[in-house]
Amino acid sequence: MTGVRIAGTGHTHFGQFPERTGRDLFAEASAGAIEGAGVEREDIEALFYGNFMGELAEDQGHQGPLMAEMAGVRAPATRFESACASSGVAVREAVKNIRNGEADAILVGGAERMTNLGTAGATKALSIAADELFEIRAGMNFPGAYALMAQAYFSEYGGDREDLAHIAVKNHENALENESAQYQRAITVEDVLEAPPVAEPLGLYDACPITDGASAMVLVSDDFAEREGIDAPVSITGTGQGSDRMALADREYLARTPAATAAAEEAYADAGIGSDDIEVAEVHDCFTIAEVLAIESLGFFEPGEGIGAARAGETTRDGSIPINLSGGLKAKGHPVGATGTSQIVELASVLSGEHVNSDAVPDARIGLTHNAGGTVASTTVHILEVRS
Amino acid sequence: MTGVRIAGTGHTHFGQFPERTGRDLFAEASAGAIEGAGVEREDIEALFYGNFMGELAEDQGHQGPLMAEMAGVRAPATRFESACASSGVAVREAVKNIRNGEADAILVGGAERMTNLGTAGATKALSIAADELFEIRAGMNFPGAYALMAQAYFSEYGGDREDLAHIAVKNHENALENESAQYQRAITVEDVLEAPPVAEPLGLYDACPITDGASAMVLVSDDFAEREGIDAPVSITGTGQGSDRMALADREYLARTPAATAAAEEAYADAGIGSDDIEVAEVHDCFTIAEVLAIESLGFFEPGEGIGAARAGETTRDGSIPINLSGGLKAKGHPVGATGTSQIVELASVLSGEHVNSDAVPDARIGLTHNAGGTVASTTVHILEVRS
Repeated sequence: MTGVRIAGTGHTHFGQFPERTGRDLFAEASAGAIEGAGVEREDIEALFYGNFMGELAEDQGHQGPLMAEMAGVRAPATRFESACASSGVAVREAVKNIRNGEADAILVGGAERMTNLGTAGATKALSIAADELFEIRAGMNFPGAYALMAQAYFSEYGGDREDLAHIAVKNHENALENESAQYQRAITVEDVLEAPPVAEPLGLYDACPITDGASAMVLVSDDFAEREGIDAPVSITGTGQGSDRMALADREYLARTPAATAAAEEAYADAGIGSDDIEVAEVHDCFTIAEVLAIESLGFFEPGEGIGAARAGETTRDGSIPINLSGGLKAKGHPVGATGTSQIVELASVLSGEHVNSDAVPDARIGLTHNAGGTVASTTVHILEVRS
Repeated sequence: MTGVRIAGTGHTHFGQFPERTGRDLFAEASAGAIEGAGVEREDIEALFYGNFMGELAEDQGHQGPLMAEMAGVRAPATRFESACASSGVAVREAVKNIRNGEADAILVGGAERMTNLGTAGATKALSIAADELFEIRAGMNFPGAYALMAQAYFSEYGGDREDLAHIAVKNHENALENESAQYQRAITVEDVLEAPPVAEPLGLYDACPITDGASAMVLVSDDFAEREGIDAPVSITGTGQGSDRMALADREYLARTPAATAAAEEAYADAGIGSDDIEVAEVHDCFTIAEVLAIESLGFFEPGEGIGAARAGETTRDGSIPINLSGGLKAKGHPVGATGTSQIVELASVLSGEHVNSDAVPDARIGLTHNAGGTVASTTVHILEVRS
């Protein structure tokens, strides 16, 4: 079984670009990835593409072949949708295809156009990642769902809004010099606590923004990289996926995300490592509480200890395990279908020493990405390693 | 590399069930597949699921984990969307996963709820499988698009509405005793010619209906089938996928579907056979002209000869290569996301001697399914073989 290398990456600015189309955004990101890889377009054997709300935001389904066209690639194209984990799932299947010799080079990526819907429209569109029959009709939306998870966490383990605020502050700080990020702006704990409430206990700065953007990468087999002389120092060495029941009311706990734990365990076993080996990670912080749940579910901290660790600075750039050096969804932005690939693009950059924040982890060789859909009803985890 | 067997299949009635939800439909189909396979739910390692318009018809995205829940399966679940080829693409990735040892048993299927949208609503929702910027905004819908393809075909090769009518008549005849079919009702060439026009040269009976329904199957590895003593006489021995440019205006020809040819060539090579080996096929006849284009693109007839062959009866149950013994999309119905799996469910039944129309091809051992998305911008082809 061959290894899988990240040969080139592309990323639009994340932000508010209501005048840009999804296809325009993906054209930019895919061109960056293909040209960065130095791979000929005719050598790319497939597009695996993630998108969540194209049907609602652009009246555009069937984006697989459309986005292949935008990338200038004439190869079978498949769209994956798993809510906010859409491109994470696309990456996973691409990794398996390359490992198993089904293809030598696959373009993987995602895009989302959201801000043209406005805040209320985008919030409504996002809600279709929840259970329509038993949650959406009852008035549930995602800020409300994660607020319930935060309340359950506080009730089970303790913690408060101020603890969570440290996560938002950290992620904004990490994004300060990341030119891809939607917000390159520092905030304080006070800013977070004084921000307008969204759903108790979450305020505006506990939530990631609504974002337009795209990301892409070219994944290649070891053989292909060596044959073509491609410089690709970072490999994807582990992949895992987990699913959970859709509706919060059907879960055993609200303060844990077992789909993430299942995905992480599979990815660790796949890479032949453990959670202790992870030196840096990009996790799905759609809300501050989501980052807490992630770092616990991934095994970095025991259940109930993530929030204290975050407050104590263990997840900052100077901490024991820096989390979201890109700025995370919170500050980099969250164009839903683009996020899974974006996390890998950013982490690969960190590990290869090319990221503005690489200096935070100059010796790091192993990192993890965690991409979650809905209230973590879908999760993918990927392990990235610098080859020695 | 292990072979892939069809261990069990499930299928709802196809028809107008606006009071049923997509989840209810898939629960029925998946239960049929799992119980028919005799596989324990905990042995199923993934759900690969196709759906096209859930975001519009039911305000429900993120259907992967939801449908796993409906199937009683706790395993990673992924939704594939490739317009009307959504579950065909899901099948393809499931086949590759099993072959490569990634899983021993995968639940694959699809569902679509459409009739609750009404005819105009469903037609509008279907249109998002075309190019929004360059086709939909110009007023294009699918009857119009296939009418252009029919006109191009007539112009290049000859043929007329009456030739096409024979295809509709044949498919209705094939569906007469198929209890899954939406229409179990014979029609005449005169009925087709006198039906209300939809888009010149296509009339109402040249088009498949709008349909609610679901289909599913359990795919297993050879080893798993033998170990568990599962009776599964039909294997999937070839898979292929092709993509084309989205907009008709960007295509070189309108009277050919090269994505289908690419998919077929890949599937034939994969199975180690040629088009001459195919004894029976289910093809994507969303419109009568689509069946003509399919049987030519798949290599059963030369370009320009498919329409004459159909009129001469070569594709009837008594012809040289029976096409759509199930009734096809035309008479069995076309719940978009369910169609790709449904074609395989029906063909496996024909090949194993259990279908009401198995007597038309009592000695057939090799068959093909062809599932197309949009104006054949996406295609998957699968080869099914009875093991000797």
